[in-house]
Amino acid sequence: MSFELPESLGIAGNEGIAKDILSGIWGGRGTFTCTIANTMTSTIPGVSDAGDTPELTLYTPPADAEMLMVGKTLCMDGIPINPGGIPTPATLTMAALRISGMPVHIINAGCKVMPKVPCYDVGGGFGRSILTGDSVTDPEGLYEAGVTLGRAFARRNDFLVVSESCAGGTTTALAVMMAMGVIKENMVSSSSPNNPKELKTRLVGEALDAAGVSPGDLADDPLEAIRCVGDPMMPVNAGMIAGATETVPVIVGGGTQMSAVIAAAVAMDPSCVGKTVHGTTRWMVNDKNSDIVGIMRHITEDIPLVYVNMDYSGSPHDGLRAYERGYIKEGVGCGGASLACIVESSGKVTCDDLLEGVHSIYADLMGF
Amino acid sequence: MSFELPESLGIAGNEGIAKDILSGIWGGRGTFTCTIANTMTSTIPGVSDAGDTPELTLYTPPADAEMLMVGKTLCMDGIPINPGGIPTPATLTMAALRISGMPVHIINAGCKVMPKVPCYDVGGGFGRSILTGDSVTDPEGLYEAGVTLGRAFARRNDFLVVSESCAGGTTTALAVMMAMGVIKENMVSSSSPNNPKELKTRLVGEALDAAGVSPGDLADDPLEAIRCVGDPMMPVNAGMIAGATETVPVIVGGGTQMSAVIAAAVAMDPSCVGKTVHGTTRWMVNDKNSDIVGIMRHITEDIPLVYVNMDYSGSPHDGLRAYERGYIKEGVGCGGASLACIVESSGKVTCDDLLEGVHSIYADLMGF
Repeated sequence: MSFELPESLGIAGNEGIAKDILSGIWGGRGTFTCTIANTMTSTIPGVSDAGDTPELTLYTPPADAEMLMVGKTLCMDGIPINPGGIPTPATLTMAALRISGMPVHIINAGCKVMPKVPCYDVGGGFGRSILTGDSVTDPEGLYEAGVTLGRAFARRNDFLVVSESCAGGTTTALAVMMAMGVIKENMVSSSSPNNPKELKTRLVGEALDAAGVSPGDLADDPLEAIRCVGDPMMPVNAGMIAGATETVPVIVGGGTQMSAVIAAAVAMDPSCVGKTVHGTTRWMVNDKNSDIVGIMRHITEDIPLVYVNMDYSGSPHDGLRAYERGYIKEGVGCGGASLACIVESSGKVTCDDLLEGVHSIYADLMGF
Repeated sequence: MSFELPESLGIAGNEGIAKDILSGIWGGRGTFTCTIANTMTSTIPGVSDAGDTPELTLYTPPADAEMLMVGKTLCMDGIPINPGGIPTPATLTMAALRISGMPVHIINAGCKVMPKVPCYDVGGGFGRSILTGDSVTDPEGLYEAGVTLGRAFARRNDFLVVSESCAGGTTTALAVMMAMGVIKENMVSSSSPNNPKELKTRLVGEALDAAGVSPGDLADDPLEAIRCVGDPMMPVNAGMIAGATETVPVIVGGGTQMSAVIAAAVAMDPSCVGKTVHGTTRWMVNDKNSDIVGIMRHITEDIPLVYVNMDYSGSPHDGLRAYERGYIKEGVGCGGASLACIVESSGKVTCDDLLEGVHSIYADLMGF
């Protein structure tokens, strides 16, 4: 096959499958979706940096949704930041969506802080702390709703992007992947370069104890793993992957949170393998404090990572250059949206084009 | 202009504008939306036949939504019927959507009985009885949500279909159009051939009294008219018309319920005129007990009706032949969906094709 990857993209994992899927959708048209949720896990001090304070982590998903739908936040002032003022990756997602003109749908899988823009409702409530061992109500219903949505969104599209904004989500991801036995140690990432690995590992151990689950017990029951120690975003997105891949390929946009979703989707419906790529960022793949490539290898050899080679080192903005020091790295489907934008343009859109878009959006939002 | 209308369609009103819009979207691609809501007005005995009993009228909108999303009802057994077993017009909508393959989105503007399929949520509650004179909470917020959705759905489409399922909606439509002074007498339709005109006129008089509004008082304030005596479907759909017509033409699918929505949309944003057609059925335009053509003339000369020449007189099913005797006539965007299907096919899809689709769907649903 003569498909040539542009400089803007890299592949980790099964290159043949990646190129096969990419060449099939190259120049095609997709729809971007982002599933938001709250889990009270994010308010445990030290767990999540996706918000300036533990309380503000609950505002990050709805605020991200508002930015994607109407270009600004409504449920809070300013934009979601990590401590230190580092801006939400929604800035990159917005740039990719503006350049491509892709349709956008937000799915509210279960929020405590409601977004002030229209969202798909799937009947989900916000997630409880994983320390309860009983985190998500009715994951089966949420999965089924996801299947229905995946089928609906696939109509007249060449591919679908599935992504998330759910603060605290790497901790729930670790917990679900441990319960499923996908990984045996803490390989998940953090939006902080100081990944609080020990804290997360300890909390996940306590959560599994509270649920009465030993690592690996729930290898064949991902929805039970999610019910015990997951978050509401997971079953909806796993269902969307299953529903959409009945007819079109899916770009799963995100970091190790979405690896857990992929693990659940593959366990629920193995036929999604071969029709799914994991779209992410260079920052994520190169992260020294996590191992998304290793995690994906544990799930299946055949869902490759395709990453976008964004580089903020030359940015005039401190908040963006921080991405190069290990902050943020992924979220709000920024890698998947960038990949989709590049795919739709048949590779013509470059990382420089995307960076220019980010600068323009960031300047607008911050009033520079 | 050489645009020739196929036999499947007819025009009432400004033919030049109708042909201009149709020729512009002929062979193009659209998205179908249906906005559902409950108003307690439908449970006033005698008001609505859109359900076998007054209580069941509350189940009709969510059940219609379920049929469009997953092909069957989930919140109730069987399908919504009028007394006598006459099936919901969603059967025709489903046929048109299957033939065209059009994407579908349901918007829940405010339901008491929640649909068991994913829907767009706009933060709306169900409507109170118009006899309260205070029927809809926050119509401004619902209108704004509609604008956001209309803009979002227009992306990458050549046109958008906006429609409704809201039992009791012709009574709220009459009330809003009286409050706005659009009509001075009861010209709205009913899903029964025995249109309970006196009852509706009396209730609307009582509702306007309760709101302290005289006919015509709210000509320039459609959202206040809706707050007093409307239903939640109206502001959302009026906003969607305004938001979508910024970039694409809109087919407003439905009967006199949607005439009231058009009246509100035109008062809120006159720029939608010239980019909007009212898509309906031959049954509606020919109804002896209502006057949709007259109503539209009172709103504007320049939003033409385009109707689909469906004829169920040769159907083997009693429930469908009843449409020829003045039952149902419109609803769930059946006329708009049929028009959209014909438009997308450049006129190749005929009324016979649609009838065949209805028969197949009806037989499946009823287990014939």
